[in-house]
Amino acid sequence: MSNYINRAEKVFIRINQLAAISEDEGAVTRTFGTKPFLEGTAKVAQWMKEAGLQTRIDQIGNVRGKLLSKTAGAKTFVIASHIDTVVNAGKFDGPLGVIMGLDLLEQLVAIKAELPFNIELIAFSDEEGVRYHTTFLGSKVVTGAFDNALLNKHDKNGITLKEAIRTMGGDDTLLAVDAILPENWLGYFEIHIEQGPVLWENKIPVALVTAIAGQKRVELTYTGFAGHAGTVPMDMRNDALTCASEFILAAEQFALQNKDHLVATVGKLDVIGSASNVIPGEVVFSLDLRSPDEEKLKTAYQHLQQLSENIAAKRGIMPKWNLVQETLPVVCDAGLNEMLKQAIGTSNYDLVELVSGAGHDAVPVSEVAPVSMLFVRCYKGISHNPLENAELADIAAAIQVSDNFMNQLIQKHQ
Amino acid sequence: MSNYINRAEKVFIRINQLAAISEDEGAVTRTFGTKPFLEGTAKVAQWMKEAGLQTRIDQIGNVRGKLLSKTAGAKTFVIASHIDTVVNAGKFDGPLGVIMGLDLLEQLVAIKAELPFNIELIAFSDEEGVRYHTTFLGSKVVTGAFDNALLNKHDKNGITLKEAIRTMGGDDTLLAVDAILPENWLGYFEIHIEQGPVLWENKIPVALVTAIAGQKRVELTYTGFAGHAGTVPMDMRNDALTCASEFILAAEQFALQNKDHLVATVGKLDVIGSASNVIPGEVVFSLDLRSPDEEKLKTAYQHLQQLSENIAAKRGIMPKWNLVQETLPVVCDAGLNEMLKQAIGTSNYDLVELVSGAGHDAVPVSEVAPVSMLFVRCYKGISHNPLENAELADIAAAIQVSDNFMNQLIQKHQ
Repeated sequence: MSNYINRAEKVFIRINQLAAISEDEGAVTRTFGTKPFLEGTAKVAQWMKEAGLQTRIDQIGNVRGKLLSKTAGAKTFVIASHIDTVVNAGKFDGPLGVIMGLDLLEQLVAIKAELPFNIELIAFSDEEGVRYHTTFLGSKVVTGAFDNALLNKHDKNGITLKEAIRTMGGDDTLLAVDAILPENWLGYFEIHIEQGPVLWENKIPVALVTAIAGQKRVELTYTGFAGHAGTVPMDMRNDALTCASEFILAAEQFALQNKDHLVATVGKLDVIGSASNVIPGEVVFSLDLRSPDEEKLKTAYQHLQQLSENIAAKRGIMPKWNLVQETLPVVCDAGLNEMLKQAIGTSNYDLVELVSGAGHDAVPVSEVAPVSMLFVRCYKGISHNPLENAELADIAAAIQVSDNFMNQLIQKHQ
Repeated sequence: MSNYINRAEKVFIRINQLAAISEDEGAVTRTFGTKPFLEGTAKVAQWMKEAGLQTRIDQIGNVRGKLLSKTAGAKTFVIASHIDTVVNAGKFDGPLGVIMGLDLLEQLVAIKAELPFNIELIAFSDEEGVRYHTTFLGSKVVTGAFDNALLNKHDKNGITLKEAIRTMGGDDTLLAVDAILPENWLGYFEIHIEQGPVLWENKIPVALVTAIAGQKRVELTYTGFAGHAGTVPMDMRNDALTCASEFILAAEQFALQNKDHLVATVGKLDVIGSASNVIPGEVVFSLDLRSPDEEKLKTAYQHLQQLSENIAAKRGIMPKWNLVQETLPVVCDAGLNEMLKQAIGTSNYDLVELVSGAGHDAVPVSEVAPVSMLFVRCYKGISHNPLENAELADIAAAIQVSDNFMNQLIQKHQ
């Protein structure tokens, strides 16, 4: 175990070194294509080279380091996560997976492992989508799913993605060349902090990710009738906020009843023209629905839409329901999961199976390859926040499990 | 009846003339002390003079016109409302009472009525409190309740009330002289649009006001714990918004059960740091409670405070309850009300008794004199809005009732 702790300490130090490279002093902010971002990719590339990997930075700014198999025509197994961050981020969301991947490959180099497949470690350049409001720029290039129409998108300063790529030294006409062809993928493994409280609460270091939830995001508008808070009797009101409150509670109740496969959140709510002495005439609010089960997500969506209309009708309120975003659920690969389960068992940790409610680079990769993910316990489940933290003991446990997983994978393909 | 319609038409024309004097072109905005406001007071003073009233503008900008009794030591009966407005107001809230009062006095002059008491018509200069965020500046001077500390209050441009009074030509050191001494008040009568939908819905032109609701305004804060909308399971959340929703619904339910003597409104609600994919960690919202019954208002307040704490405790949320404003209920004078009831009956209108949920100048006046109010039907109950309207037939009905009321009052004191 002390070996794992030593390796965890090295991971921890590198995470801190990377976190020190930021757009904002005293905070971690490293969004796609900025100067600190480029400094960060250079740092990661340097580490990869030092580890003995065939290293390059591709056209979209992904840092990619290969450990080659001697087998002719060998497929490629990708270990990856991202190194861009949100604004005022934590240190672990993204970098943990990249730097733990680096540690895994350093270990394979150290033991001079005979590889039956190539391993490519990738630090994706854009998962958070902060700058261009579109996620997975890095992984979509690697899977060949990059949409060239995005090149004309502008950031808030009017700089197009095409210009940003060129400023970074990339060539936007060669993005397709950076894709790993579908027939060459063996599989994908990503380590990530949980970003949720289950492991923290249960004091268990790692979890197997069985699926990544699909998501539907809705903007709802309830239009009633504004009125004077003192003069309109209770039974003559068309209050848009009490109507929204009834829906919010009903949605919470429904999600609680289906908590094994559903979360529902109203995160934004605006009372239009609000004043303490005015009965709300219009309320606009969001609904974020997630489930790992496509069919159940669809059923929940339809149920809640019907519910929103029924509640509005009962109260003389005009409802508007606008689907603004949706992604399908991703199921992690059964074969890879089986190996991860055994790795967790062999390492003597209780098996926790979780659904990822957040999106990850594994989502676009799942279109072309079997994917697997390992979650690491993080402080109170907090992420996208400077309080984000993962304890050394938990990182060490994740290293132990990942070593074990990689060994099984290598043995299986030998 | 045609005589009442003719008088109503004259009232209507004057209301339009006054509404044309505004800070904003195309809208009615006439806040305390502005140039259009002064133009408005000059116009009203001119009308009073033309009607034969002893007219003056007092130090706080109230326009005051007297019709004197020949009886030595006669008391004074005040007929009044206000001529300041909110921003983007309607034409009727305030001016209707002043201009109908003017019409009543013109009628008394026309019939050469022998007055057993003086009548003073007052156009109060500030009821809405838009400029200095404190209501009833005008009526508090007349009742002798003006607080000199207010003179140092600043408006949004940094101008003190003292400076505003001087700019208007007033002398802030003589405000106390403008008060009608408590022993000289006979009573008070105010005509106002209902600002609620009861008369509109029931197609009845006027209502007797039995009381003016007392009000308690609370700012509530619910603090839970923000989290990722995808990764925190439903049963591990401390969602401040679902908590607020439960309280809002419970408050609505409680007020509905007590609708004969209570209204409860949540008009403002802000989710702090809101995003569609973040579980709300903090929600700040208002609660406006009104009742004509002091004891019931107190009971409701205590009940809802307890309820807010119980709901929060159940959900692991930290509640904060901050009383930010309160006014006591005012009961209108039984004797004056009896005369108003008879006036309504004699005029062959159904008797509707209403509680005013909004505050009026009658509130400060009630400290020194018996008060009475007559509500006039207004379009859909809408006020503080350009859609505010009162129909000619309803104004004519209100003139008929008011004539009748004044005749009874004069007869009673002869």
